Amino acid sequence: MFPKYDVIVVGAGHAGCEAAASAANMGSKVLLITMNMHTIAQMSCNPAMGGVAKGQIVREIDALGGQSGIISDKTMIQFRMLNRSKGPAMWSPRCQSDRMRFAEEWRLTLEQIPNVDFWQDSVRELIIKDDQVVGIKTSLGIEIQGTTVVLTNGTFLNGLIHIGEKNFGGGRVGEKSATGITEQLIKLGFESGRMKTGTPPRVDGRSLDFTRMEEQPGDESPAKFSYTDTPKLEHQRSCWITYTNEDVHAVLRTGFDKSPMFSGRIKGLGPRYCPSVEDKINRFADKDRHQIFVEPEGWNTVEIYVNGFSTSLPEDVQYKAMRLIPGFENAKMFRPGYAIEYDYFPPTQLKLTLETHSIKNLFFAGQINGTTGYEEAACQGLMAGINAHLNAHKAAPFILKRSEAYIGVLIDDLVNKGTDEPYRMFTSRAEYRTLLRQDNADIRLTERGHQIGLADDNRLQRVREKVANTALILKELKTVKAQPEEINAQLAELGTATIREKQPLYQLLKRPDIEIEDIKKLNGSFAGFLNQYDEETLEQAMITVKYESYIEKEYLMVEKMNRLEDLEIIPNFDYDRVAALSFEGRQKLKSLRPGTLGQASRISGVSPSDVSVLMIYMGR
Amino acid sequence: MFPKYDVIVVGAGHAGCEAAASAANMGSKVLLITMNMHTIAQMSCNPAMGGVAKGQIVREIDALGGQSGIISDKTMIQFRMLNRSKGPAMWSPRCQSDRMRFAEEWRLTLEQIPNVDFWQDSVRELIIKDDQVVGIKTSLGIEIQGTTVVLTNGTFLNGLIHIGEKNFGGGRVGEKSATGITEQLIKLGFESGRMKTGTPPRVDGRSLDFTRMEEQPGDESPAKFSYTDTPKLEHQRSCWITYTNEDVHAVLRTGFDKSPMFSGRIKGLGPRYCPSVEDKINRFADKDRHQIFVEPEGWNTVEIYVNGFSTSLPEDVQYKAMRLIPGFENAKMFRPGYAIEYDYFPPTQLKLTLETHSIKNLFFAGQINGTTGYEEAACQGLMAGINAHLNAHKAAPFILKRSEAYIGVLIDDLVNKGTDEPYRMFTSRAEYRTLLRQDNADIRLTERGHQIGLADDNRLQRVREKVANTALILKELKTVKAQPEEINAQLAELGTATIREKQPLYQLLKRPDIEIEDIKKLNGSFAGFLNQYDEETLEQAMITVKYESYIEKEYLMVEKMNRLEDLEIIPNFDYDRVAALSFEGRQKLKSLRPGTLGQASRISGVSPSDVSVLMIYMGR
Ligand SMILES: Cc1cc2nc3c(=O)[nH]c(=O)nc-3n(C[C@H](O)[C@H](O)[C@H](O)COP(=O)(O)OP(=O)(O)OC[C@H]3O[C@@H](n4cnc5c(N)ncnc54)[C@H](O)[C@@H]3O)c2cc1C
Ligand SMILES: Cc1cc2nc3c(=O)[nH]c(=O)nc-3n(C[C@H](O)[C@H](O)[C@H](O)COP(=O)(O)OP(=O)(O)OC[C@H]3O[C@@H](n4cnc5c(N)ncnc54)[C@H](O)[C@@H]3O)c2cc1C
Repeated sequence: MFPKYDVIVVGAGHAGCEAAASAANMGSKVLLITMNMHTIAQMSCNPAMGGVAKGQIVREIDALGGQSGIISDKTMIQFRMLNRSKGPAMWSPRCQSDRMRFAEEWRLTLEQIPNVDFWQDSVRELIIKDDQVVGIKTSLGIEIQGTTVVLTNGTFLNGLIHIGEKNFGGGRVGEKSATGITEQLIKLGFESGRMKTGTPPRVDGRSLDFTRMEEQPGDESPAKFSYTDTPKLEHQRSCWITYTNEDVHAVLRTGFDKSPMFSGRIKGLGPRYCPSVEDKINRFADKDRHQIFVEPEGWNTVEIYVNGFSTSLPEDVQYKAMRLIPGFENAKMFRPGYAIEYDYFPPTQLKLTLETHSIKNLFFAGQINGTTGYEEAACQGLMAGINAHLNAHKAAPFILKRSEAYIGVLIDDLVNKGTDEPYRMFTSRAEYRTLLRQDNADIRLTERGHQIGLADDNRLQRVREKVANTALILKELKTVKAQPEEINAQLAELGTATIREKQPLYQLLKRPDIEIEDIKKLNGSFAGFLNQYDEETLEQAMITVKYESYIEKEYLMVEKMNRLEDLEIIPNFDYDRVAALSFEGRQKLKSLRPGTLGQASRISGVSPSDVSVLMIYMGR
Repeated sequence: MFPKYDVIVVGAGHAGCEAAASAANMGSKVLLITMNMHTIAQMSCNPAMGGVAKGQIVREIDALGGQSGIISDKTMIQFRMLNRSKGPAMWSPRCQSDRMRFAEEWRLTLEQIPNVDFWQDSVRELIIKDDQVVGIKTSLGIEIQGTTVVLTNGTFLNGLIHIGEKNFGGGRVGEKSATGITEQLIKLGFESGRMKTGTPPRVDGRSLDFTRMEEQPGDESPAKFSYTDTPKLEHQRSCWITYTNEDVHAVLRTGFDKSPMFSGRIKGLGPRYCPSVEDKINRFADKDRHQIFVEPEGWNTVEIYVNGFSTSLPEDVQYKAMRLIPGFENAKMFRPGYAIEYDYFPPTQLKLTLETHSIKNLFFAGQINGTTGYEEAACQGLMAGINAHLNAHKAAPFILKRSEAYIGVLIDDLVNKGTDEPYRMFTSRAEYRTLLRQDNADIRLTERGHQIGLADDNRLQRVREKVANTALILKELKTVKAQPEEINAQLAELGTATIREKQPLYQLLKRPDIEIEDIKKLNGSFAGFLNQYDEETLEQAMITVKYESYIEKEYLMVEKMNRLEDLEIIPNFDYDRVAALSFEGRQKLKSLRPGTLGQASRISGVSPSDVSVLMIYMGR
């Protein structure tokens, strides 16, 4: 019934969709198998993309030629650039999405990729020959051959849903869980674990009193995720902010004895940085209120997502407590919040390509690797799809360095450090975060995406123009000098110090209180020059000027690390022969098998002196 | 957590959605509980509304103030008036729908009705007190009070899906089945049965060769379902026609030994008039081909519905056979066809209001009553919703006669005759089908819908204008006489007989070869008069003229029957006291308890002489 595929992707969540799209767009024949074709790219939890560090990931996906940015742009109902008041390393794009449109747009996008075939079914088993995956077997008993297989099962593997004292099987509420795969992988020697995550109740927007909340409108001039010509938002929907209070907390506490988390019924570890509301009031007992974001689920629906109120307490406790939140006095629930427990596979069992160490051509991506979040899942899917394609075509792997992308940081963290709790991206995880900005993901990555045949020529040309134009602007800024008599009046007006001698505009732009727009006012003839360039290019030039020293410092660090990174450790390196290694270091190195000294240096338990010992041993 | 509701509707399929909308629009506080809020108003099978007899039902729903017509109009991708070449009693509107848009539009429509609350959950149990339903209990253990409850569980009660030799639980593919309700109702003394229905595989439109099929475009000037100002289709998508052949049949036969139907694994009876393809080639072995309609699933998706190829044979047999159909040589499947078995409750356990006989305030509507089809489900939902509202407000019931509407025929058939196989509407089931036309559903029903507060004033005014204007036109047609010298040339041109003496236009319009448009040409000054009226009114006048004699004949029959219909039989009538009744007649009357002599006359097993005996006994 089926041809042999280059890549079989199991699951059509955020990871699976990006995996299928990238492999197919690179030329692989791809089969996307998912349990229900009506739930392709469902947002299981909040209807939003991006946010701090996550927004950067979406832009990186886009720069490489992935789809999440484009789809987010087409289906967003609000856009905000978070952290605008901080340095540009912290600027983080985030949007509210129309949940239904988002899923539909993904499906239509995939349908438009000629190389993607679809099959609605549940995968029960992998077909393995000589430690190599060669296909899958479905619950209908169908066997399908594939050169590579990407597993992106999300929260579905032996999924168990908890609400108060009740629990029942399911991969998401209203959907079946998936069985068979975990059991088989364990037999094959894989280690698996259990994690949990939760979601808040959904409520009827018609029953809320928004006058009792603070409005949070979108940005006045909304930006977007994709570097391509996706449409800009013309109008937006507002979100709203309100707060819990001591009364809310008191009611929630009445349910603690029935909480599946506190009672120990839930064994899996939850995301520490995305805690349930009961977790928050338990852990931060001194805080008398917590913020609640009231987010619409789409352009037209009245359904509201109660961000910040994730809970698995009994539904009547959820309800009673919720009604004590200002604006929620008459709130009607559509469904209660719940927690879900699911199987994951510690990602230290993977290579940097996301291929498993022990089974050739088998890739894992997304929540199955112990991460949480759409963006984290999507970028893994993209990388697994790329590498599955490359494997299938016997081409060299595609790996992003920590200094190149948040995606590189994420995968490097997962593979080398592993994770015991749901892994989420933060800016603090990136040591080079001044380099890894949302504004320059195209400059960092599009060339690389183009090399492997994913980002198209159009994208590359745009980036090259942006880079060239930025350089031109920088050159002019250094060349053109302003005279005191010419600009001092304006400087005074801007509230910044006047100058005594002529100064290059470059120098002036370094001042924290001067923006590129101000430069135009200072020098009228230069304004004409600047006006030739688009906003993004001007911004790029400004950031380069203002953050020059930080950027240079990080480049030096990167070079140093790259030297370690270049020191490859042969696959079967015998650590027992290096007597000077610490006991723990040796154990970790033997089990995690880092590919380079750089990787080795980031393994927890491997000390700097272990790294030095290895360096000396390797003759450097 | 919940207030007490006037009406609780269980299930948000076509029946449940209409039930919730109608009861709420009439003023009831309604709770709509459904297993998954993402699947509200899913079309389980083909993406189409209307068709022969079914299209009439949709127009009736619309005329009464229901939603299915409006939603169909807003989401259709093609419209055709079937049977245009036959008499207007046979004209039947039918559309292809955009499956996703249809479901979304229903959800948004329900969200806009202030009186509808939503709850996502599965109902496991009814709360019954003193033979009266007073609420429901969900799988989360939540109890919710309601004055009335409408069950619309569709194909979900103990649903079992079959594909070849495999079977698994589910209410639709990828969705869970519902348990508990059947078991409880049986304990309460209800009789239940098992039925089955099937669906064809879905395929990838990109893999079909449409040049090998016949194109079936929509009507050139597409009409619509609703009598309100819904938008008219501006452009349409085509469907395609192809055929099976002996080769296809031969391959299908290779799967017969694994067929769940032929092997007896499926116990439930399937819809005789909507058979699976294996059924067709089995029952009509002499037919060497069967028609296949190739229908797009929406405006943008590539998914295709293979109408006419419903099957539960093993998926590889489906696949091999399908590829032998012209145009399907390279077809790729998204998922195989399957059959589903589910519980239903023989509808003879219901009153004409769709309330159950034995449990007060409990209503059944849709597939649970042994029917099949969206339209059949929707109209029952509408009627159950109306009557649940009326019950909750202690108002008189709302019943449509067989002479008033297909809806009346359907419910009367179900309640009085019952059904052993999935019941589907046909024009042949209506004895007054010249009266029950698609063009006059508004005239027949809007006044009635308005009386109960469902159809709004606007609708009523439109109908009254249409009726008044039709009468005006008829009067003028009778008054204005054409002179031979004035029109004979034109008559000759039209290819119809010339006249010798002056004749009223009315008389001329009776001719089968003269349309109302031709009358305009015959008499220029009259054209000015006619042009004041819209198409629908002109059509109404024309049909009244042309079919006058048929219509009158049916009116006479209706009157006769209505006399029987008016003869009420008291609820506890003791049939044993009427010695002259036949044995079978007595048994049926005792078990089905008809409310009128008219109903009694339609019960199979009750003979005309039994009816006479009763009439005499009742002193008529
Ligand atoms: C209740 C809940 C709460 C959450 N809360 C948060 C949160 O607070 N913060 C946060 O960042 N993230 C949260 N998430 C996580 C977020 O939804 C996921 O990180 C993200 O969706 C993971 O994407 P994925 O592609 O890995 O898997 P998913 O989006 O889960 O998609 C998995 C896909 O695989 C399919 N599938 C699974 N098994 C099979 C099989 N055997 N055969 C065929 N198809 C299969 C499924 O049908 C589905 O389409 C939550 C998720 C859930 C369910
Ligand atoms: C596989 C298949 C093939 C079909 N083929 C044909 C065909 O060939 N021709 C034809 O005319 N018709 C066909 N149909 C039938 C058509 O889909 C139905 O007639 C129509 O959908 C019935 O509408 P309904 O509202 O009664 O139920 P459904 O549309 O089935 O809706 C039932 C709703 O109730 C919900 N529900 C069920 N139980 C519970 C519960 N306990 N608690 C909460 N919610 C619940 C479900 O989630 C669903 O939303 C087919 C259906 C299926 C599934």
